[in-house]
Amino acid sequence: MTDEDYMRMAIALAVKGEGHVNPNPMVGAVIVKDDRVIGQGYHEKYGELHAERNAIASLTESAENATIYVTLEPCCHYGKTPPCTSAIIENGIRRVVIGSGDPNPLVAGKGIRILREHGIEVTEGVLKEECDAVNPVFFHYIRTKTPYVTMKYAQTLDGKIACFTGASKWVTGEEARAYVQHMRNRHMAIMVGAGTVQADDPMLNCRLEGGRNPVRIICDSTLRTSMDSKIVKTAGEIRTVFATVSDDPDRIEAFQRSGCEIIRTTPVNGRVNLKELMQMLGEQKIDSVLLEGGSTLNWSALQAGIVTHISAFLAPKIFGGERAKTAVGGEGVKDPSEAFGLKNQKITQIGQDLLIDADL
Amino acid sequence: MTDEDYMRMAIALAVKGEGHVNPNPMVGAVIVKDDRVIGQGYHEKYGELHAERNAIASLTESAENATIYVTLEPCCHYGKTPPCTSAIIENGIRRVVIGSGDPNPLVAGKGIRILREHGIEVTEGVLKEECDAVNPVFFHYIRTKTPYVTMKYAQTLDGKIACFTGASKWVTGEEARAYVQHMRNRHMAIMVGAGTVQADDPMLNCRLEGGRNPVRIICDSTLRTSMDSKIVKTAGEIRTVFATVSDDPDRIEAFQRSGCEIIRTTPVNGRVNLKELMQMLGEQKIDSVLLEGGSTLNWSALQAGIVTHISAFLAPKIFGGERAKTAVGGEGVKDPSEAFGLKNQKITQIGQDLLIDADL
Repeated sequence: MTDEDYMRMAIALAVKGEGHVNPNPMVGAVIVKDDRVIGQGYHEKYGELHAERNAIASLTESAENATIYVTLEPCCHYGKTPPCTSAIIENGIRRVVIGSGDPNPLVAGKGIRILREHGIEVTEGVLKEECDAVNPVFFHYIRTKTPYVTMKYAQTLDGKIACFTGASKWVTGEEARAYVQHMRNRHMAIMVGAGTVQADDPMLNCRLEGGRNPVRIICDSTLRTSMDSKIVKTAGEIRTVFATVSDDPDRIEAFQRSGCEIIRTTPVNGRVNLKELMQMLGEQKIDSVLLEGGSTLNWSALQAGIVTHISAFLAPKIFGGERAKTAVGGEGVKDPSEAFGLKNQKITQIGQDLLIDADL
Repeated sequence: MTDEDYMRMAIALAVKGEGHVNPNPMVGAVIVKDDRVIGQGYHEKYGELHAERNAIASLTESAENATIYVTLEPCCHYGKTPPCTSAIIENGIRRVVIGSGDPNPLVAGKGIRILREHGIEVTEGVLKEECDAVNPVFFHYIRTKTPYVTMKYAQTLDGKIACFTGASKWVTGEEARAYVQHMRNRHMAIMVGAGTVQADDPMLNCRLEGGRNPVRIICDSTLRTSMDSKIVKTAGEIRTVFATVSDDPDRIEAFQRSGCEIIRTTPVNGRVNLKELMQMLGEQKIDSVLLEGGSTLNWSALQAGIVTHISAFLAPKIFGGERAKTAVGGEGVKDPSEAFGLKNQKITQIGQDLLIDADL
């Protein structure tokens, strides 16, 4: 077994934390002595032990002179738990192999320095790309202090998200719709516009076994959402935030009485200031937002520059229709040279549909 | 070398005929004796020798007791050239290995029977799928007597074929645009609506070195196209057909004087009857049409049931725009359950863009 093989094991452990560690990164660790795995662990839940400490807790024998493989540079500061570098040193581990460097300015390289000062051999950057890919949200959030926003939509091969009648059940197949539940589990929050709530009366919950419901964020400039909508009625059970520019005290009180939170931003053309909203959500430790907006909110989000990533499902069918809605509406760009360009495109077949992922 | 290896050589020869043999199929042939290739050929040009005869003409020694590998069942009837079965028998070939069966009712299995009656060993269906895939147009045309229609369009990841201003230069990158020239070479005709001619004033020619210009078909119900358009002005050099329901003698005469042909169909809601038009084009031996129409013509074509295949280019960019045009307009279907379903989806990366191919 090579360093890469053990790091691959650590990555497989890391991703088990999906949906439960935000805004922390997913991290996995494997402890190896004489080419035998003697301990393994991952960061399982926000606020609980880090991967390194879980691996150490699982040890079947002393880690003296062992090697630890960890997908992300070990922390060296007191957060919710004591620093992992101390645990590594105390346990006599002789070598540390690291995947990603820590982008957190509180850590960045300090963990590695401390380990080396204690005579521990450190190897950096093993399967770095694969390890980085485990935590795009974490890397984004640490750097920008605003959520990683994934704009998700499902369209036909002729670019329609609904028929001209508004009917949209369903564009994609079962497998793709099941995959969306994983996306909801991976993101801390989900965001739609008031128009979507009015049209579909959705729950916006995560229907995955063992999954976690995302915080529901409704952009509702005028607070027009009905008190009888499922979203408002279940606000006591699932955290629900209405983002608005309205200052109508009666409406605000009604929403709050139903258990909804209200976030007010400055207005941009009478609408919610999405950039400001993302800063506020970032301060509330919301590291990721799944934008399942209709075409108007999607355009506003692109224009506001808050979109990090696009996940577009493409169904092998044609709706047609000059008046049928497309994924991104609003005014649109005037000339192809002004288009929003996408990079790092990746294609995945999901059931009968395609998923196209790309970064802004 | 196995049968499959030699058949693969024959396929590689067959596709060299692309753009020059329609409405005949592309066919390749390899003659092998004692595991040595002693002859090879392909159908190079419509009206000239078939692949088998070209391979025989290239023989470096007698074909006595040799094996011939041919991608399509040899013909046994007099067409533009004498039957290939005779040439095989006369040359003392002992074994014939065939890829595709011939869907032409004039041939279908008869060639094989004649060969066997002459004591020749026949092996059928070697790499059948690959061989069939060389000639989708031929198989469609022989069966339906109407052209194989490829609906081709280029859109952004949010399904726009132009900005709301109409600007569409360019949606896709250079490689994708170069690929379209190959598509024009492969199809005998190209079809657009009068709106596209008015908006873009295109040439619709094939700008490929050694390529062949497709017959240009303009759907123009009212014959509104300007006499000053490039299409009309170059009708003397490139065959150009206006499909219409107009019976205005002055307009018809003006077009004909410029070298354009006129095809009149019965009207469907005041527009060209596309189904009838395809039957007429089929009778004129046009086996394939590349539909580069705007969104209105594309919808009419789908509704008329004339579309065989879709080639959709997908550019990694977003235009947005509620009023920006999409690939398929018109009224559209009312409910997702009524969507036009696509099958045999295939994805190819072309430069920065994706090409999604699918059959109706």
